[in-house]
Amino acid sequence: MSKEIGITSKKADDLSEWYTQIVTKAELADYAPMKGFMVLRPYGFALWEQIRQYFDRRLKESGHSNAYFPLLIPESLLKKEAEHFSGFTPEVFWVTQAGENKLSERLAVRPTSETIIYDAYSKWVRSWRDLPLLINVWNSVLRAEITATKPFLRTSEFLWQEGHTVHASQEDTDKEVLLILEYYRQLIEDQLAVPVLTGYKSEREKFVGALYTTTLEAMMPDGKAIQMGTSHNLGQNFSKPFDIKFLGKDGQNHYAWTASWGVSWRLISALIMLHGDDRGLVIPPRIAPIQTVIVPIYYKTGDQETIKQKSQSVFNELTNAGIAANFDNREQYTPGWKFNEWEMKGVPLRIEIGPKDVEKKQVTLVRRDNKAKAAVMEEEVVSETKRCLEDIQSNLRAKAKAILDASITNTDDYAQFKKTLSERGGFIHSCWCGEVACEDKIKVETGATIRTIAFNEQASGKCVLCGKPATKMAYFAKSY
Amino acid sequence: MSKEIGITSKKADDLSEWYTQIVTKAELADYAPMKGFMVLRPYGFALWEQIRQYFDRRLKESGHSNAYFPLLIPESLLKKEAEHFSGFTPEVFWVTQAGENKLSERLAVRPTSETIIYDAYSKWVRSWRDLPLLINVWNSVLRAEITATKPFLRTSEFLWQEGHTVHASQEDTDKEVLLILEYYRQLIEDQLAVPVLTGYKSEREKFVGALYTTTLEAMMPDGKAIQMGTSHNLGQNFSKPFDIKFLGKDGQNHYAWTASWGVSWRLISALIMLHGDDRGLVIPPRIAPIQTVIVPIYYKTGDQETIKQKSQSVFNELTNAGIAANFDNREQYTPGWKFNEWEMKGVPLRIEIGPKDVEKKQVTLVRRDNKAKAAVMEEEVVSETKRCLEDIQSNLRAKAKAILDASITNTDDYAQFKKTLSERGGFIHSCWCGEVACEDKIKVETGATIRTIAFNEQASGKCVLCGKPATKMAYFAKSY
Repeated sequence: MSKEIGITSKKADDLSEWYTQIVTKAELADYAPMKGFMVLRPYGFALWEQIRQYFDRRLKESGHSNAYFPLLIPESLLKKEAEHFSGFTPEVFWVTQAGENKLSERLAVRPTSETIIYDAYSKWVRSWRDLPLLINVWNSVLRAEITATKPFLRTSEFLWQEGHTVHASQEDTDKEVLLILEYYRQLIEDQLAVPVLTGYKSEREKFVGALYTTTLEAMMPDGKAIQMGTSHNLGQNFSKPFDIKFLGKDGQNHYAWTASWGVSWRLISALIMLHGDDRGLVIPPRIAPIQTVIVPIYYKTGDQETIKQKSQSVFNELTNAGIAANFDNREQYTPGWKFNEWEMKGVPLRIEIGPKDVEKKQVTLVRRDNKAKAAVMEEEVVSETKRCLEDIQSNLRAKAKAILDASITNTDDYAQFKKTLSERGGFIHSCWCGEVACEDKIKVETGATIRTIAFNEQASGKCVLCGKPATKMAYFAKSY
Repeated sequence: MSKEIGITSKKADDLSEWYTQIVTKAELADYAPMKGFMVLRPYGFALWEQIRQYFDRRLKESGHSNAYFPLLIPESLLKKEAEHFSGFTPEVFWVTQAGENKLSERLAVRPTSETIIYDAYSKWVRSWRDLPLLINVWNSVLRAEITATKPFLRTSEFLWQEGHTVHASQEDTDKEVLLILEYYRQLIEDQLAVPVLTGYKSEREKFVGALYTTTLEAMMPDGKAIQMGTSHNLGQNFSKPFDIKFLGKDGQNHYAWTASWGVSWRLISALIMLHGDDRGLVIPPRIAPIQTVIVPIYYKTGDQETIKQKSQSVFNELTNAGIAANFDNREQYTPGWKFNEWEMKGVPLRIEIGPKDVEKKQVTLVRRDNKAKAAVMEEEVVSETKRCLEDIQSNLRAKAKAILDASITNTDDYAQFKKTLSERGGFIHSCWCGEVACEDKIKVETGATIRTIAFNEQASGKCVLCGKPATKMAYFAKSY
């Protein structure tokens, strides 16, 4: 691969430039002609489809259904929950004309669908028998981004799923919020091999209109956190303005409780930054659109037919065993060119088949994560490929976990807090008094926000800023 | 089921009212608060997912990939192909503001994605090695509808797939256009059991900007046609303004050829109208989200446990055999209530299990299409269910084919043409001179347009309107 085709920047030197190059050169995404928008290319979409397929199955197994709600939301509807409206309105794209006619009311291009969905729920929910109502939507939402575009991370339109559920009690809603958070954790940690901290958001950082927000936060190699997903208990804050009531078993009408939760294609950005290297992407096997690529190596014309046949038969065996394999039989490219391309695309395992492999009734496995090369007997190709893919998955997870663990600094000393943040970033685990004034001041002075407050962690000590008795233990960090 | 819950209008008396009721009462869709928009409810979405899953698999098997392109398209980009722009501009929703800022250029909410996709293709296509480029998108598009909303048929936003492919020659493009048309035919006829006429659109009716358009047209019970899908050869009409060029094997640069093709949730409207009856929907088994529902019938408390166990074991057997079964074990509803609900939702086959069935080691199958009831021995439940589902599929297809065949009137007499159209509608198969003037006049006088011109049919005779020698045999009809 020539210098121009490969990544010309080192991950350790310039993460941002490296990231941009990897996204475009691995053909995950491309820039659109409008600032803030990106195109998700077929390989990137295949990765998103893997995430979607996994999570969609989990949702269906637990009784959730998919549906579709309109893209455009009348301004009056968006305004029904005041806090929610004021939170989103600065970034709403407004439709004001249809053809050459001016509309009598502005229509918002959905920034999130609570309002349009609750309008429907108020018609559908009548009795306790209708609850819980568990609906999910896979769509795109739009929020005008004024800062520089960063594919998968800062885009004015992004693909996501948004779940919107209705329950009969606060307790049922709490259970749903935590069930989904756990599903997200499994998706992110077990499939994407990205370890996270989970917990509550502070009042300042919670979703506008929520009772409380739970979150999953990952740490990137440059010391900045990424919010991977959130799950909110919206209390009765939406059911009241939207009039979502049900007849309880007690014969009385009650306002329902609602929850909402979402993850977006931003999951992909964390996967890229954590696992990628200077040769390109490294995709964890469980989520890889292509888990292994078979590259035949011909030296002499005479070998070609035998090697091709053997490659095809290995491909068939792997495919029949449920492994997502690709047989790269393109004749216009050399093996070396193919190695570079599939390394750029992060395929976790390469299987080389050359004359020596044929002779010895073996194949050669080359791991993407640590470059280890091993000969494996033909009859063991399926079992060894599976074992190897599992090992790559664990290895990526373990390496990422070490990065997360090493990034955490425990301190209640504000000088060290500031020094650590400016020198290496990461999570600063500190005592906090619980006052928004301290939270605000820390943000202004250091750029760090409270990323999460761990579940069930007792605070003991003094607020890192004001020195008053702490009420909470918070994880602070700068973030994307 | 009470009168209010069931459909209060007869299909034969008032198809339009019957249709509206069935859509809402079977919980396929609901009206949104904005004129022209609808909500696709979970059961309707499950039906759309069945269609999507089938067709997506066909596309992937034939080398197509999915991707995602931005929702908003700058006006200048939409204008690049003049004919295309003038065709779509009257129905475009325009975004003119982001937050409270006026945009310097209007952004169109995608009415179709040719322009934004071709902008990307002009960067991606370089050499003959990059061709064919076969990309599909599942998304929603918006076109302002001024006439009355009709769920799945006339809505300002609809879910669809749009395929956009690039080829090296006209011949390759023709092949793609016809391959997709054949996939659509298989989806529509073999899965949805909706028979169609296929052929070309006239110049007047073709896609704006296309070289030619091919189409699939179904006939509804009220004598009006529905366009089920279209596949277009766009020639070099878009590659020229969008500068999609490739270096050929001959070492020269050539403009590429492009095709586009789409089917939308309107497929569902034809399925409803053709197969439904006065009790509700009838969904063809191959596309049904639930193929069979098991309803236990308890008379005495003593029977309950045995019947429940047997129902559960039948459910497990069917599920393991790959049949989409549902065990309706809800205790708050009577068997009669459940029968009505699942009939309304069009589940093709009901399996009743009562005390007599337990005693005789049998189950009772009740078909949705013809109400036929049959006892089947326990050990044959899987094979008989499969046989029965296949039979329902064929029966629905045969009945629909009879409606289509009976709807066709062959005539070159304009008086009969008009009389037939006004009395019973259907397709009028007539000679046509090929002049747009005649086509226009027929439309003004009768409301009928040329729905399609059959492939490979020789014209012999005189134009039904002007009497000049015919150049084409056309199928005229009124349409949705």
